[in-house]
Parts: sequence; structure tokens; C-alpha cells
Amino acid sequence: MVLRTGEQYINAIKSRNKVEIYVLGKEVKDVTEHPFLKPSILSFKATYDAAHEEDSKFLARAWSPFINEEVNRFTHIHRSPEDLAAKVKLLRKLSHKTGACFQRCVGWDALNTLYIVTKLMAEKGKKDYYERFVEYLKYVQKNDIALAGAMTDVKGVRTLKPHEQKNAYLKVIEVTKEGIYVSGAKANITGIAAAEEVIVMPTRAMSDKDQDFAVAFSIPLDTEGIKVIVGRQLNDARRMEEGEIDALPYRTNHEGLVIFDNVFVPMERVFMLRDWQMSGILVEIFSAYHRQGYGGCKSGLADVIIGASYNLAKQIGVEKASHIQNKLTEMVLLTENMYSTGIAASLDAIKLCEDCWWVNPMFANVTKQLVTRFPYEITKLSTDIAGGILGTAPSEWDLKNSKLRPYIEKYLQGISDYPVEDRLRMVRLLENVSLSVAFLIESVHGAGSPEAQRIVLNRIYDYDYAEKIARYLANLEKTEFKDKTEPWRQTDTEKISQQKS
Amino acid sequence: MVLRTGEQYINAIKSRNKVEIYVLGKEVKDVTEHPFLKPSILSFKATYDAAHEEDSKFLARAWSPFINEEVNRFTHIHRSPEDLAAKVKLLRKLSHKTGACFQRCVGWDALNTLYIVTKLMAEKGKKDYYERFVEYLKYVQKNDIALAGAMTDVKGVRTLKPHEQKNAYLKVIEVTKEGIYVSGAKANITGIAAAEEVIVMPTRAMSDKDQDFAVAFSIPLDTEGIKVIVGRQLNDARRMEEGEIDALPYRTNHEGLVIFDNVFVPMERVFMLRDWQMSGILVEIFSAYHRQGYGGCKSGLADVIIGASYNLAKQIGVEKASHIQNKLTEMVLLTENMYSTGIAASLDAIKLCEDCWWVNPMFANVTKQLVTRFPYEITKLSTDIAGGILGTAPSEWDLKNSKLRPYIEKYLQGISDYPVEDRLRMVRLLENVSLSVAFLIESVHGAGSPEAQRIVLNRIYDYDYAEKIARYLANLEKTEFKDKTEPWRQTDTEKISQQKS
Amino acid sequence: MVLRTGEQYINAIKSRNKVEIYVLGKEVKDVTEHPFLKPSILSFKATYDAAHEEDSKFLARAWSPFINEEVNRFTHIHRSPEDLAAKVKLLRKLSHKTGACFQRCVGWDALNTLYIVTKLMAEKGKKDYYERFVEYLKYVQKNDIALAGAMTDVKGVRTLKPHEQKNAYLKVIEVTKEGIYVSGAKANITGIAAAEEVIVMPTRAMSDKDQDFAVAFSIPLDTEGIKVIVGRQLNDARRMEEGEIDALPYRTNHEGLVIFDNVFVPMERVFMLRDWQMSGILVEIFSAYHRQGYGGCKSGLADVIIGASYNLAKQIGVEKASHIQNKLTEMVLLTENMYSTGIAASLDAIKLCEDCWWVNPMFANVTKQLVTRFPYEITKLSTDIAGGILGTAPSEWDLKNSKLRPYIEKYLQGISDYPVEDRLRMVRLLENVSLSVAFLIESVHGAGSPEAQRIVLNRIYDYDYAEKIARYLANLEKTEFKDKTEPWRQTDTEKISQQKS
Amino acid sequence: MVLRTGEQYINAIKSRNKVEIYVLGKEVKDVTEHPFLKPSILSFKATYDAAHEEDSKFLARAWSPFINEEVNRFTHIHRSPEDLAAKVKLLRKLSHKTGACFQRCVGWDALNTLYIVTKLMAEKGKKDYYERFVEYLKYVQKNDIALAGAMTDVKGVRTLKPHEQKNAYLKVIEVTKEGIYVSGAKANITGIAAAEEVIVMPTRAMSDKDQDFAVAFSIPLDTEGIKVIVGRQLNDARRMEEGEIDALPYRTNHEGLVIFDNVFVPMERVFMLRDWQMSGILVEIFSAYHRQGYGGCKSGLADVIIGASYNLAKQIGVEKASHIQNKLTEMVLLTENMYSTGIAASLDAIKLCEDCWWVNPMFANVTKQLVTRFPYEITKLSTDIAGGILGTAPSEWDLKNSKLRPYIEKYLQGISDYPVEDRLRMVRLLENVSLSVAFLIESVHGAGSPEAQRIVLNRIYDYDYAEKIARYLANLEKTEFKDKTEPWRQTDTEKISQQKS
Repeated sequence: MVLRTGEQYINAIKSRNKVEIYVLGKEVKDVTEHPFLKPSILSFKATYDAAHEEDSKFLARAWSPFINEEVNRFTHIHRSPEDLAAKVKLLRKLSHKTGACFQRCVGWDALNTLYIVTKLMAEKGKKDYYERFVEYLKYVQKNDIALAGAMTDVKGVRTLKPHEQKNAYLKVIEVTKEGIYVSGAKANITGIAAAEEVIVMPTRAMSDKDQDFAVAFSIPLDTEGIKVIVGRQLNDARRMEEGEIDALPYRTNHEGLVIFDNVFVPMERVFMLRDWQMSGILVEIFSAYHRQGYGGCKSGLADVIIGASYNLAKQIGVEKASHIQNKLTEMVLLTENMYSTGIAASLDAIKLCEDCWWVNPMFANVTKQLVTRFPYEITKLSTDIAGGILGTAPSEWDLKNSKLRPYIEKYLQGISDYPVEDRLRMVRLLENVSLSVAFLIESVHGAGSPEAQRIVLNRIYDYDYAEKIARYLANLEKTEFKDKTEPWRQTDTEKISQQKS
Repeated sequence: MVLRTGEQYINAIKSRNKVEIYVLGKEVKDVTEHPFLKPSILSFKATYDAAHEEDSKFLARAWSPFINEEVNRFTHIHRSPEDLAAKVKLLRKLSHKTGACFQRCVGWDALNTLYIVTKLMAEKGKKDYYERFVEYLKYVQKNDIALAGAMTDVKGVRTLKPHEQKNAYLKVIEVTKEGIYVSGAKANITGIAAAEEVIVMPTRAMSDKDQDFAVAFSIPLDTEGIKVIVGRQLNDARRMEEGEIDALPYRTNHEGLVIFDNVFVPMERVFMLRDWQMSGILVEIFSAYHRQGYGGCKSGLADVIIGASYNLAKQIGVEKASHIQNKLTEMVLLTENMYSTGIAASLDAIKLCEDCWWVNPMFANVTKQLVTRFPYEITKLSTDIAGGILGTAPSEWDLKNSKLRPYIEKYLQGISDYPVEDRLRMVRLLENVSLSVAFLIESVHGAGSPEAQRIVLNRIYDYDYAEKIARYLANLEKTEFKDKTEPWRQTDTEKISQQKS
Repeated sequence: MVLRTGEQYINAIKSRNKVEIYVLGKEVKDVTEHPFLKPSILSFKATYDAAHEEDSKFLARAWSPFINEEVNRFTHIHRSPEDLAAKVKLLRKLSHKTGACFQRCVGWDALNTLYIVTKLMAEKGKKDYYERFVEYLKYVQKNDIALAGAMTDVKGVRTLKPHEQKNAYLKVIEVTKEGIYVSGAKANITGIAAAEEVIVMPTRAMSDKDQDFAVAFSIPLDTEGIKVIVGRQLNDARRMEEGEIDALPYRTNHEGLVIFDNVFVPMERVFMLRDWQMSGILVEIFSAYHRQGYGGCKSGLADVIIGASYNLAKQIGVEKASHIQNKLTEMVLLTENMYSTGIAASLDAIKLCEDCWWVNPMFANVTKQLVTRFPYEITKLSTDIAGGILGTAPSEWDLKNSKLRPYIEKYLQGISDYPVEDRLRMVRLLENVSLSVAFLIESVHGAGSPEAQRIVLNRIYDYDYAEKIARYLANLEKTEFKDKTEPWRQTDTEKISQQKS
Repeated sequence: MVLRTGEQYINAIKSRNKVEIYVLGKEVKDVTEHPFLKPSILSFKATYDAAHEEDSKFLARAWSPFINEEVNRFTHIHRSPEDLAAKVKLLRKLSHKTGACFQRCVGWDALNTLYIVTKLMAEKGKKDYYERFVEYLKYVQKNDIALAGAMTDVKGVRTLKPHEQKNAYLKVIEVTKEGIYVSGAKANITGIAAAEEVIVMPTRAMSDKDQDFAVAFSIPLDTEGIKVIVGRQLNDARRMEEGEIDALPYRTNHEGLVIFDNVFVPMERVFMLRDWQMSGILVEIFSAYHRQGYGGCKSGLADVIIGASYNLAKQIGVEKASHIQNKLTEMVLLTENMYSTGIAASLDAIKLCEDCWWVNPMFANVTKQLVTRFPYEITKLSTDIAGGILGTAPSEWDLKNSKLRPYIEKYLQGISDYPVEDRLRMVRLLENVSLSVAFLIESVHGAGSPEAQRIVLNRIYDYDYAEKIARYLANLEKTEFKDKTEPWRQTDTEKISQQKS
């Protein structure tokens, strides 16, 4: 049985060799017990528990032909459009269970990306990568490994290319027969302290001068030379209070800066080495996978926000007011819009190679572009419904002060069915979910900043074909219509290489 | 071979018995030659030609198990999610060929709706309707009949129910063994003058007091007692000029008021009679089908607008300016967003009964709600790109005046590759497509006004479940999560009846 | 008494010498009787009548120190912030009286612009222009002349400068002691056929190579060598039907292409000649004046649309529905937002020189930028409220057909207080105002396309000062705050030249 | 000299008698030294310093006819439209100096409101209130008292009226000759812990059954029976870390729940007692004043956000990229739009009585409605420009760790002109200002939630007059136009009483 339980995951993290992880300037001994990080660990853990819970295991498990066993879907290679849709559905559901980012998608998307990229390289004759990767994949599936993925480089001066900069991109320092040595840093790495291993990928298309930056590999986090500095998040200091209401301490997520200081990677874990021509393709494939996923996880968080807003409206008796109903409906519209484009990106998928299913790149980019916009609108609407109390409610420490509690209970009481403590708990849930890095900042920048999706939309839409249609209708030419129904869609005989040009 | 050509369709319309059709106050002799209506006929005709054109026949044909032959998809009963997606794709493509509404969807959606509704009634024991309907369906498929659909009643005072009003809803006057007599009017009937037959359906849920209004049937347009008053449209009078540029006379669409003055319908064409309990279900099924379709046809018109805008930008050398690129990208985003939700509504479909595929109602309603908003934004962006010339360009009659033409050619010349006449033709195309009833007003009100979709969104989203999720995360209850990934989705064992409650 | 009546204005237009004016390819004999142009003349006429009507004369009159008499405000030089606000208020009111653009603002803004520009040139020693201009101004005021203004050149290839193009900009051909000869064309000239004279101005900043294009002057329309080709507008062909309902024939507006074929301008009417350095300043001053005005006239049209929408909602009994109330409120918000920024641009004005009041350029540009967006939103909301009938209503010719009228009256009746003819008239008003060139296309492109305002906003906002504020608050510097309350505002000692740099 | 310095203010707060103030469940000894509250005190202090700083004293001072001296404008009764504009300008400037809400506006608006309301009551014969109030005003002006204002009641069940609830509204318990006793609580009271006195007002229109809730008075905070529970805010716990970067500890603001437990108010401080008829008028006057002000303070915060975003773009070399320029321009537009409507509300003011200047209620409500929307959009745009680092940057404690600092400085370096510490400081400034209660939640709910403004917009716009205009233009009636230029504006002879109906 390769399906770990959540508890087995926790134990695995506890039993790592020492990893240098820093939080608020201090090294952390046990991430699973540290008040700042524990909520992240619990959120990551939910991806394991889901495979054993009745309401979710039908989504969280998949059968792997590589090891001929049922695996946790977070290690699965998609084998059909339905698999891709199951991903989006699973992510929505997991957001319901965590109210946060559960941090295991990047590693998953990295697996799927490397599967395709190494296969494409194999088709061109470089078979080593693919063989190594499949071995690695089996290991990950059999052991249900907790993976992080690291793509974003620190980037330095944005207008310069990798080779024109110093320190801005992770780099191959030395290559030996046994393996490679790398140095540099990766930024904004989601869930890094909660992972056992990290898959590293290049962050952009490269030229031949940049070949030392075109490297992909996997490495256990407890390898020598790796350091992690966990970043701050909005409202994070409340976790250190170790209360039980205000910080919503049960589940959250984190990002970190990962430093590689002359780290050795054994050759069997190297999946791309100086193949600069493949770097852009890798990024394109990965980012579309990752953008699709946002349609699931962020709509799931939006469900939480809708539910909390609705409950708070009920607590003061206004849930039936027409303007409240109107705002709830708008939140539903925005939520289902993000989600349905993610579903379309899945079910109208593209088969890139035998057993390789990629998402529809147009719809995946539409999905993420919407996700860069709607959460701010949803948060605004929820703020509106929740009322001023969202910014002025007493703390749990006030409630626990026996002198103050009677006043708070007297004056903050709404409909009598709801204890005042319920109201404060719900206010804090809404505050911590709607005004979070996970819902706002990550929605803007995760899987590429808004402009990145716009560049893809603009590139893959075929304006020339649209112009021909217009010229035909304006009686300016006898257009030869093509057998494609959308200007951007390729005909069957076309290839990913064209998709990319 | 049951696939009519466009020409066969035209001949069929010409050979109808006399139908009383009025345009601008005068009765029309031959709709296929009348300058006001001919463009509509040509647009409807495109649905027939598409089944014979290389670039579209793979979409425009489908195999019918009812008659064991290939039929025009516009008469097809959807048998899979892929069929539903093919509908959306076909509609997008046909918009490219017409630049207008081609007016054959309502009849098609009516066929699919009645197929399900009569089947549901058969399951409850009333088998006549289903049997009659299948016979009728075979007739339609074999003869590739041009169908219109009529749902919208004239409605009178909106706050009153059907039985509280006079004249506002079409009504059964008398029932005999041979058939029924109906009187009343249906409004906003798309493409009515271009159809051979019309399928009539009730427009809303009914109570037992309203049972005389709960009637569905089909009737040839040349039946005695039917009158059609064709409505005006923005910019329509230009068609009467009979020019070749300014009115874009080749293709357009029309709506009409259809009057039924004691019209006899033979019983074999009656598909619902006083079954008031089924009226709301019929409307729900129809409207979701019809809302899904808007994701196809309106995104196709948006492609035309994008193409025209892009061409006009090129004509004056600004297509690469960053703000133009940004606006084009935004138009692409809006277009693909409408479209992808329509695709999601198709591929994530619901099987209502054996061989009955209904669209996903949440996604279908999201699709239409977007369509009520985005066309105005797309039109604004295209106006911005096109420049002031959109509202000030000389007429074709100026261009054809040999004294004026040299001035116009001298002063309106942009990039020399493009003759001034091309510029004027493209300006007129954009004006006639972007500022049209088909793109603006129909997008708002067709398939139900915006509030109608919001009512559905609000009704089918499960706020109570979302609230439970929030309460679970706020530590207020030990939620039993359900095996559904979206708050609104039913579990497998649930039924349409619940969907409808 | 220098205040003409509307009738006197009509007579003046009738008594012009022959002007070559073309409509739909044919020369027009009498613009005041031509069905295409008469509505424009009546709209222009409203600016004269307003000075004699009780409800508006307090706004439409102003006292001129130049001729020591009360003048029509449309010939007035603003002498205070209150004068500027009176302009905005007058424009809103006139929109109520016309439901259209009344076409006299461009000439008015041209007068005020040339007053300042010639004064600035006089301050630098070139006094002739100012002296000529004041003489001309007195003539205009004493005779209450109907002025058009012509700024927009035909522009050709947008990426080329004036001197790099052929034909794209109006040009000085020859200069003699008596005057100058000019050739070229001006495009999109509002109300040109309804004017007695036109003031011509350069359209952009010029370099020394472009000096032949840096010319401003005034000229009677009946001067030899001038030709006018009137442009088409959305829905214009209905005017030619000469009905009384569908075309709303009473008031509208028009734009035209004006051709100058070696036209002689006497020197006393020349207000700028090859002063290329002043060309950009002239455009900046004019465009801010003109952008401010849009806050008045377009909010006035929005009032008409709100009123029509409200009336149509009442006619079917839904005006109190919460979603209708919500949409009306949103229309009010958008309307008053456009208007209030125009008022702010007026009352927080800038004194450019003695007796010279210019609008606040930031607020004027904000106003116009809003006007490029909100009308499409207002039109969408009004379409939503009005219902599908906006795109499907029978024509007046149907209503006048005695056979059809009973059916129309029977089936289109709503609340019994409102005759069906009222409903059709109101539908046509809404169609003709909300979906018009005046409300949509002119709002986007008049007084400069959207990007033009964004360039100004971006240029005059002082990002460096905002950055200093941020650096001060981030404890990065000890900022010297300046005595200005907005980052973009100048301190008292600064000059227009800086405003312009 | 009545103009206190900031230091004098601090000393005054320190020398209050004991006030029961609770933060995070514990009583605070000295608010001026408490890490949670000190930033608020410093922000309040800025209103005093401004009257002595060269760049702001021209705005922060005004001459009072009541005491014949120059006073701090925050105690000034507006005597002209220019005074009202000076308020908006001062608030924008103070936001530049604090990056936060400075919390002194509510008390100021309360003074101006009570001045008018007591004057209106005096006109009706109740002169005591006015006389008491003017005495109190002189005291406030002479001593430059730090005032808070308390309007919002805790409200309980929103659908019940005050007298139908228990505890939900502050209430008069007993009236004696010397004064009154009140009990209850006021919620969301801005800056309460930083004030010396608080002015209490009713929160809504009242009926005769609610007269015990119709009470207005002023009271020193150190009066017996008053307790303050300071509320939590987003990100507040960082203040307790007592660092110097991450919490931006210099300036912030707070809100509190104020409990009145049988508090005695001497009669000379009572300004309304059971005058339930005046309660609605008081709220209307106050809320319009307060809504106008938001056009100043929130646009000032937006300047800070624009400046920080611009600086962060420069730090990585992308400030000239077209999409960054476009986003900055959009932020400027939104900022100046909010601000200009506030200016219009001021300069187009209404004189309610002799020496009483009220803001234009339409424009004031437009201003606040915009403020409920734009900050979320501005925050989204700033998040976009700032990059993912906004949610992932290391803490100041990491930077101060000598082992980690070299890594951070190596890998987070952008353009070499900017030290990495600058980048982190600017990121934290942006995080703390853009994602704050002051910019987001207060913008939605302060001065009334969004629906409150919509109700006013909908009520004061004259739809009937707009309808008449439409009917006139549709040729349905011979409208008598009124001498008002906006549908909602009153003619000169009309009164506030009508404004209020």
C-alpha cells in the first residue's frame, strides 16, 4: 500500500535529517511543532488524509501504470482529460478542508511537466533523462513523497538576461561523472519547509549563452548546502501568540527563499542539463498546468469566503436583504467563472504525445488571468457583507478576560441562535482567508504574474485568421476558412512546436 | 440524403404557401428577395451550406439513430458531452461565416428540450407526447426543416400571473379530438420569417390556474391565422437603400411578433397540453441549453470584431502600439472567457435520462451572464481601436460620386497597402456587427434577461453547504463533508427534480 | 440686443451664400430643410433658444466686457471658476432639451483657447494675433455667430510626423500681405453644416519642420474652396423615411469632412501662423477645455436615458423591483461621477493669465477618461431595464397600418395608464439616444481618444513626489514635503510652461 | 496661542486621569508608550504638528470668529466652500505624513454637524442646545482638544428598531436637573484611545418610540463608567514584536468598542435629548460631511501606494515597461477620481443656514461610493507591480541575523542603486498600507456601508424629473423645464427639509 496517511507524512517530515530552516531570523528545530510553520504542515498533511477520507478518496486516488498500484493523485501522471478535471475538482475540495493553499501542486505539476519534456527529448534521441525520470517517478509514487517545486529565480534586474546578471539565476557550477554542483537561489517557493524533496526547474526561455542556467533536477531537502529562509505573510505574527481563534492556527501555508550553496546532485536525479532549447518549452508546459489548477484551489477558497459571509449575514439577520443576495450571487458568479474555465482547460485538453495530456493552453491562461482579478473583488464583496466588525472586533484575549467577556457578549450579540464567540470565530476565519497571501497575492503572482498570461493570450490567438474572417465578411476577400473553430486552435496535424513559435 | 443545400432551403421558403409577414407596415411578397429580410434569409441559409463546406461539415453533420442517417446538426438530439461541445464550436464557426445571428438555434434547442420533457412525461406514464414528438423529430430530420422556436410571451404587466392578465400569454382556446385552437402572441421571435415551422413553448412556470397557458406544439408558418410583424433593428433602414457597402446587406437577422388568431394545431403536433407542472421544468431545460449556445455564437461575433479592429489598426499603422495590443488582448480574454464557460457547460454535462444529455446548468448560466456583459465592453474596445471614423465616415454614395471620390481617397488614405474603399468597407462591417441588435441587445435579453440567470445561480448554489465548510474551518462544527466537489453539484443519486426545487 | 433667437439663427443659415455640402453622395440645397440635416440644425438652434427661455437664460447668458453687453454664453470668454461651472451646467441642461449633441462647444472652446494663446504670444511680444483676435471676438459676440471648430486632421499614417506625410495635415500653401492660402482637410468636424464660420486650429504639437501646419484662423463656411462631406451615423437612414417616431427626427447632430482647396484667409482672421512652438500649448489648452465640457453634455444625455429607462420600467410595472432600483442607482452614480469631476475641473480652476481662467487639467482629463467608459455601461444598464423590445419593436409604419394597429395595441399593452404608442415612442427615444454616435462613439473619441487622456494623467502626476512620500514613510529619507496637497499640483510660483513640460 | 504642538498633545494624553483601555485582553497603562497603540497616537499627533510645519500650516490653520483666534482646522466650523475644500486637501496631505488614518475627522465632523443641528433647533425655539454647544466649541478651540466621535451603535439584529432590541443602542437611563445618565456601547470608534473627549451622536433616524436613543453629548474619556476595548486589525500582532521595519511601527490607527456603564453627562454637555425628529437629520448631515472627507484621506493613502509601487518597479528596472506605466496611470485615474468628487462636494457646497456650509450631498455620496470600490482595485494594481515578494519577503529578523544577511543581500538585489534593506522596507510599507484596515475595510464601512450611499443616491436623484425630460423628448408632453440643471438639484427657494424628505 503506497498511500501514506497524514500521520505517516508528519512522521516522515520529523525524521528528515537536519535541514537549515529559518523563521523570523531563528533556526527552527521541528517544523511540525513550530507555531509559525505547524499550520502549513497541517495544510500539506490534508493532501494525504484526503486519500483516506470517504468524501474525497474517489478524487484523491488514481491508478498508476508505472507501479501498477493506486497512488495519491498528487503523484499521478495525467492520462486523460478526466484526470485533468479530477485535479481541478480535488483542489477545490481540498481548499474546503484547509481554507488555505495546501502547497503540493507545484511538485505535482513539475512531475507532469518533466514527464512530457523528458519524453520529448527522448523522441529526439536523448533517452537518458526520460529513463532517469521514470525511475524517479516510481520512487515518488511508491513512497508518496512530499514534493515541492522550485521554478522562480530571484531574477535581479528584470531587463537583463540570465548571463548578463550575477546571482540572479540558479546555475550549474561543475559537472562530474557522478553528478552536478549547483549554486544560486530560488524565491517564493511554496510549502518548501513542509516538503521532503524539491524539484528544481529553469524559470524562463534561455539562449545558448544561458545554458548553465538550463537545468532541472530533484533533490532531498536535507541535502548539504541547502538553506531555507521562510518569508513573512500578512497577519503572520498572530500565529506566534499561540491562541486558538484569532490566527486560525490550524491551517495555512508559507513560501520560502531556498539557497543552494554548491549543492551536489547525483546524475540519476538530473533531468535537464544545459538543454537551453527546451527551457522555454518546459516553462510553457509547466505554467499552463499550474494556471489550470488555480481554477480549482481559488474557487475552493472562494466557497469558504461565501460560506463565511453568508453565515455572518445570518448572524445579524440580513441574509435575505436584496442587496446581500445580489452580492452573494455576484460572488457565486465570479467563483464559478474561475472554476468553469479551469474545467474547460481540462476537458478540452491537448494530447501532446502518447499518454501525455496537457491542458488547453488558451483556457488555462484565461483561468489564471481571471484568478488575478476576481479574488480582490470577492474579498471586497465579503468585506461589504461582513460589516465593519471585520476590522474592529475584539481579540480572543479580550473574550477570555472574564471581566470583559460579559460586555462583549452583551453588546456584540446578534440573532440569539448564534453565540458571540461564534461570531468572533467566523469574523477571524473570514479575515484570515479573504485577506491572505494565499487568496490575494498568490492569486496575482503564482503561476506567473498577470502580464505573463496576457503575453500568452496575445501570442496564441491568431489575429491574422480573425482578420481574414473580417475581410471575408467585408467582401474584401474570398477567405479560405480553415477547419478550426477558434482562431487560435491548431488543426489536427499541427504540433506543439508550432504552438510554441 | 437528408442534408439540404442552402439553395434547397431557399427554394423551400419560396414555395411556402402565403404567410402574412409585415415589414415597415407593408406585407412582404417574397422574403427571400425583400431588401429588409433577404440578409436574414442568407444568414439562416448558412446553416445549410455549412453541412456541405469542407471546413465545417465535420461539425455541421451528425448521425441520427432515429432515422439512421446523417443529419444537419441543427436537427440533432445531443447524445454525448462531445455533441454539446460540437454545438458551441459550430455556432462560433457560423458566426464567422455570417457576422450575424443565424437564427436556427431556438428551434434546435426546442427539439432537444421537448425530447427530454416528453420523455420525462412518458416515464410518468403519459407516453403520447413522446411518441408524437419522436415522429415529428424524424420528419424534421428527414426533411431538414427550417425551424424557429417561440417561447417569449408578450407578458403585459410583469407583476401579474398569466391568468390574472388579458392577452399577455398565448392560450389554448378550445380542445377537440383532432387538435387544439390557440390564440395570443409570441414576441421577439428570432428568424421567424425565415422558418418553415415554429415550435411554441410556454414561457414560465405555471400554477394550476394557469393551465391553459401550459401548451407546447409545432406548426407550419403558413397555417391560417398566423401573422408576423417583423421588428425594427438598429440601423435597419440602410438595408432599404440597397447599396453594397454601408448596410452590409449580405447577412443579418431579424425578430418578429407572431400573432396566433385562433390557430388550429392538429393533435399529432401537440407536445404538452395543460401539463402546468412540467412548464417550469421545460423552461429550465430550454433556457440552460440556449444559454450555453451563446458562448459559441457571441464569441464568434467577437472574433469578427477583433479581426476588424486589428485590420483597422493596421490600416493606419498602429497595430503594434502597446495600448492597442493591450486592448486586443483584453478582447481576446473576454471572448475566450465566454467561450470556455460554454465549453465547460458542454463537456461537464449532465445525463438527465437514457440518451439525454443536458448542459451543466451552473456553467450554462455563468456563460450567459458573461454574455450579458462582455459584448458592450468588446464594442467599447473596438470603438476605441477603430477611431472616430466609426461615427463620421462618408457613405458609399459619397464614394460613388465621381466628384467626391478623389477627395475621399486623398484624405482618408492610411498605409498605402490598403485602398480607401477597403477602409470604408471595414469601418462599415465593424459598425454593423459591433453596434448591432445581435451583438448587444440580444446578448442582454436573449435566452433570458440578466436577472434570470442570477436567479438560477443564486438558487442552485448551495449556500448552506458553503456555510458548513466555513463553520468547519472556524472550528464550530465537525462537518460531514459530502462527496461533491462544488457546493452546488448533486451527488450521483440525486435527481433533476431536486435540481429544480 | 445681441442675443439672437433660434429663428434668427435659422434665417442666418438659410441666407448663407452657397456652400458645397454633400449628404449621402448628393449636394444639399437647404440644410435647414434636408431630412438628414434638419435635426442637427434644430439641435444647434437650441443653443440660441436657451438664451430666451425662462428655465435656462440664467445660464445661457453672460455679460461681456469686450462689448459691454449681455451675450450668448456660447461666445463668452470665461472670467471666473463660476463661469466654467456655468458652462458644464448649461451643457447638461441643453442635453435635456435636445437629447443630442448641440454642436456649438468646439467653436466656443476654440474662442477661449485662442484668447489665451494669442494673449500668451502677446506677452512675448507678438501682439498682432491678440489684437486681431479681440476684434474678431467682438464681431462674433455682437452677431451671435454660429461657430464650428476644426482641430482634427485626417492624420494618414499615425506613426509619421506631419512633414513626413502627404495630405494628412492642413497646410499653409502661400502667404501674401493680404492673407494666406491653405489646403488640406479636417475630419470629424462636429456640426459643420450648421455653422456660419469655422475656427481652424492645429491638431498636435509641431516641430520646426512642421511649421507650415502650425496655423490657426477663422473663415466663413461660404468661402470659395470649402467643401463639406457629411458623415454617416448609426441609424441615420431612418431620417430619410421622414416619419415622426422611429428616427426621433426632431434633434440630432452630425459630423463632416471639411475640404480646403486653396482657400484664402484674410490676414485679420489669422491667429497663428507658423508659430510651431505654440502649437502643442494650444492643443493642451483646447483639449482640457473640451474634456471638461463632456462632464456636462454626456451626463445630460445620461439623464435622458435614466428617465426613459425609468419610464419603460413603469410601463410594465417593474420600477420598484430591487434589481431595477439597483441598476437605476448605478446609472445615477455613473452619471453624477462624470458630472462632478467636470464641476471640480471648473471650480478648482487655474488662472493662466489676467482674466484667463483655464480648467484644472487633472480633473478635466479624469472627466473625459470617465466619459470614454461610462456611456457603454449606462447603455448596457438601460438595455437591461428596457427589455428585449428595444431590439424588436414594430415600426411606426406598422402602427400606422390600420390592420396591424389593433394587434399591436392588444399585445404590447403593459400598465393600462400608458398607451402602446407611448411605449413605442419611448423605446425609440431610448434606442436613438443610448445607441447613438453622440453617446457612444463621440464619448470615446471626441476631445481626444482615451489614450490621449491617459498620457496627460501620466505626465502631470508627479510620481517622483509620490515616491518621496513613500520613502519618507518607509524611513528611507527625511523628505522635504512641498506646499502642495496633490502630487501633481504646482506651487503658486510655478508656471504654465512647467505644466506643459 | 491656541495651536497645540504635537508634543503638547502627547502630554495631554499622558496626563488624563485613568481610563480603562484594553488591548489584547490586558489593560493599558500608558497608551503613548504601548507598542500596539503608540503608532495610533503618533498618527493622531500629526494633526497637531501639521499646524506648525511650513508645508502644511496654510491648510491646517483657520481663523475662528468664535474665539477670534487662529485655531487648528480640526476644530474649525466651515464658513465657506473654500473651507470645505481645505478640509479635503488637508486630509490628503496628512495621509502623506502618516500613511494611515489620523483619526481626528469624526470629532471634527461631529462639531460641524452639531453646530448646524443645534442651530436648526434654535430656529425652532429650542435655544439651549445651541448656546451650550457654542460654549463647548469655544472650549474645544481654545484648548485644541483631541476629539473622537461616536455614532455607530452595536445594532444587534439589523431588522429590528432600537426600541425592539435589548442592548443594541446607547440609551438615556435617567435625566436629572444636573445632567443625564447613559448606558450602552458604541462600536468601531476610530482613534478612541488617542482622544481626550468623545462626542456621542445617534446612529439613525428614530421614531417617537425610540426617543431615549435620540441623544447627543460630549464627554471626557476619563469619566467614570467608560471602558474601551481596542479592536484587532489585520497584521496587528507585528506591532508587538517591537521591530523597526516589518510592522511599520511609526504610524497607524485603531478602532475600539466603547462601553458606557451608567455614565453621567452634565447638562451643559448635552446637545440633543429625546429630540427624535432631529435624529435622522443629524445623521444625514454628519454622514455627508464624513463621506466628503474620504475623498481626501483615501486619495492621500493612494498616493503613498502609487509612490511605493513606482519605487519598487524602479528597484528592479521595470518602471518604464508599458504595462507598468498603464497600471500606474490607472491608479492615478482612480485616485484623482475619488479626490475630485470630494473637491466638487466641497466647492459646489450648500448653505444650510447663516454661516453654515454643508457639502453637496450628491457629490459627497458619490465620493464615498467610489471609495468603497477603488481601494481594492488600487491594492490589486499595486500588488501586481510590487511582485510576489510582497507575500514572501524575509523578515527584518532574518535581515538582522548576521548569518542570513549576506544571502539576503546577495539574492534580493535588484538595480544596484538600491540597497536590499531599502527594498524590504518599501515592501513592508506597501504591505502595511495597501493591505490595511484603514485602506480597505474602513473604506468600505467608514461613514456608512456601500448600501447607505446608494440609498441616498437613489433618494435624492429626481427620477420623475428625468422621466419628464424623456417624455418631452419623445414628444409625449410639453414639459415645463425647471430652473435646475441637475435632476436632483433643488431650486433656490427650496429648503433642507425637502432635501430630507
